[in-house]
Amino acid sequence: MSFIATPQTMHFAEALPLASGASIRDYQLAYETYGELNAARDNAVLVCHALNASHHVAGRYAGQERSEGWWDNMIGPGKSVDTNRFFVIGVNNLGSCFGSTGPMHTNPDTGEVYGADFPVVTVEDWVNAQARLLDRLGIAQLAAVMGGSLGGMQALSWTLQYPERMRHAVVVASAPNLTAENIAFNEVARRAIVTDPDFHGGHFYRHGVVPKRGLRIARMIGHITYLSDDVMNEKFGRELRNAVNGGYQYSTQDVEFQIESYLRYQGDKFSDYFDANTYLLITRALDYFDPARAHGGSLARALAAARARFLLVSFSTDWRFAPARSREIVQALLENRRRVAYAEIDAPHGHDAFLLDDPRYLAVVRAYFDNIAKEVQP
Amino acid sequence: MSFIATPQTMHFAEALPLASGASIRDYQLAYETYGELNAARDNAVLVCHALNASHHVAGRYAGQERSEGWWDNMIGPGKSVDTNRFFVIGVNNLGSCFGSTGPMHTNPDTGEVYGADFPVVTVEDWVNAQARLLDRLGIAQLAAVMGGSLGGMQALSWTLQYPERMRHAVVVASAPNLTAENIAFNEVARRAIVTDPDFHGGHFYRHGVVPKRGLRIARMIGHITYLSDDVMNEKFGRELRNAVNGGYQYSTQDVEFQIESYLRYQGDKFSDYFDANTYLLITRALDYFDPARAHGGSLARALAAARARFLLVSFSTDWRFAPARSREIVQALLENRRRVAYAEIDAPHGHDAFLLDDPRYLAVVRAYFDNIAKEVQP
Repeated sequence: MSFIATPQTMHFAEALPLASGASIRDYQLAYETYGELNAARDNAVLVCHALNASHHVAGRYAGQERSEGWWDNMIGPGKSVDTNRFFVIGVNNLGSCFGSTGPMHTNPDTGEVYGADFPVVTVEDWVNAQARLLDRLGIAQLAAVMGGSLGGMQALSWTLQYPERMRHAVVVASAPNLTAENIAFNEVARRAIVTDPDFHGGHFYRHGVVPKRGLRIARMIGHITYLSDDVMNEKFGRELRNAVNGGYQYSTQDVEFQIESYLRYQGDKFSDYFDANTYLLITRALDYFDPARAHGGSLARALAAARARFLLVSFSTDWRFAPARSREIVQALLENRRRVAYAEIDAPHGHDAFLLDDPRYLAVVRAYFDNIAKEVQP
Repeated sequence: MSFIATPQTMHFAEALPLASGASIRDYQLAYETYGELNAARDNAVLVCHALNASHHVAGRYAGQERSEGWWDNMIGPGKSVDTNRFFVIGVNNLGSCFGSTGPMHTNPDTGEVYGADFPVVTVEDWVNAQARLLDRLGIAQLAAVMGGSLGGMQALSWTLQYPERMRHAVVVASAPNLTAENIAFNEVARRAIVTDPDFHGGHFYRHGVVPKRGLRIARMIGHITYLSDDVMNEKFGRELRNAVNGGYQYSTQDVEFQIESYLRYQGDKFSDYFDANTYLLITRALDYFDPARAHGGSLARALAAARARFLLVSFSTDWRFAPARSREIVQALLENRRRVAYAEIDAPHGHDAFLLDDPRYLAVVRAYFDNIAKEVQP
């Protein structure tokens, strides 16, 4: 049974300048903390979230069954990131839809709901917003910043934007930028949302509708790319949902295979809670992240700014953020003579593996944090 | 400059029984032939098409620039499949939208356009329809049946349904069935079409509209899976379409990257000419194909019926129909002591490679057909 987590919010009146040139003011960030900040204030760990996750990283909500945070298997008392030793912070990113200011909130400049007018936010913007939250929490330097997937991009960006504000960075199942194929999948998902007649140019809130068709398609595409071909074959294979006399129903629109049923269910569930404008914003932040871009494409030059020690983890069957992409980061860090540990976990689950209970993976992270714990004040 | 091709149609009054239990009558097949049937009638080659192709396999249409058939680089006078020696037949499949009877035609039983009521067709049904066409053309036995991707599935099925009606089968970039991931991509594409409000349950013709949004999404997904990650990175990488001062425009809805522009263009083009019901039917035929299914999942037992000699070709970076899937077919044929040649072409282009001008690929097919030519009467 997990501990009880309590979400909090922090309001920021001062405008935050964004990479696009726009800015956002009077915003709030939803966050949670687990464990205790020690007297030396040197045991804080910031956890950055991926596309559809939130500040609810670990623990569960009082009175809500199955409300465990998305990394509850990793973080908690006695777990790999032990909240008996570390003060862990989860923050919902700007533009998300789980409590921090996002497209469904009111723009203070116009008094209207932002909708599609919510400014484009980048990984760098999120890191700046998180840094302000740490300022307010009185944390000058993190023991570690960590994240998986898009969260790993934020952890990496932290080491470049605020090189002195963390001692360690843990970057899991991530990449130094998206490939053309990654961008392509994001773009198809966005087109499905934007061309849904219920999207209304991103101002669907005014119309009392939600572009659920588009969100469903976006999620189905996402799900395919989170899983490996192997695990899909193992979990679903060519199994039929309702075999008629042991055979096909012969229908183009009804569910025939189990995998179809699974994807439809995932799409339906997602479209009930996720905001369409947030989906656009977060996939765009993924597309844009590319620290090497300002350095003539040289990741090694980009990472020269980093001072942290690193743990990188990748998963063998992850074709969305393949091990080769993590190795690019490792290589660029080594070229800068940075200290880096790297674990490539042989796991069948594709990109999703970073959220799952692989004992070797959890042990690698545990061992790394055990060493970090030795550096913090008791 | 290619030769001039002339499409023809053949009408079939008699009902064709289908795998689903339904049947279709008073249908027509569009087809083309190239070269001359020899006196012994033993030099015919049937070419089966994939998802969005047609009977227009080679040559071009008089007065139409850039109207070359989809395998014009492979088939023609002096080409790998030499129409100076072989009589080549291309047939548009039932349910397609290029001249053979399909969902946009009138159901003779109701006097209404079929639309979504067009019967579900399978690879086996297509093969039966093609066999009737060969009957009418007076061709008892083919020198070879050949096809790529879904066309390769038809070629394989020919050898099981009519083992004595061909001497050779050439199966390119194909598979003995779809994986769960393949089905998943097909299902997302179908959901995009079916949930487009302009689909009207498949009877959009009556409403004078076309579910273009869904077709665009379907095609974009398809295109991603036809290409390899590598070739996408090489062709598009992270190149920007219109860099503003050398940087991002910061937009979630406008085209930012070249890959987005390419996919949108492909989607738009496709939605202008392809029928939505045909897309559902053909992807379902792909899903359903699984000759091992009736043999307890044993491909070797399924292929025991085959008598043809085989050439199989796969491409190293094809992740839609990976080389391992072709090797399954090779293995099952070898277990049956069938004669089989197999070429795995190291090509960067993914599944699309089967349509491209890879010299080694074209040479392999040429060598194989040179040998077939020795068996036919002059």
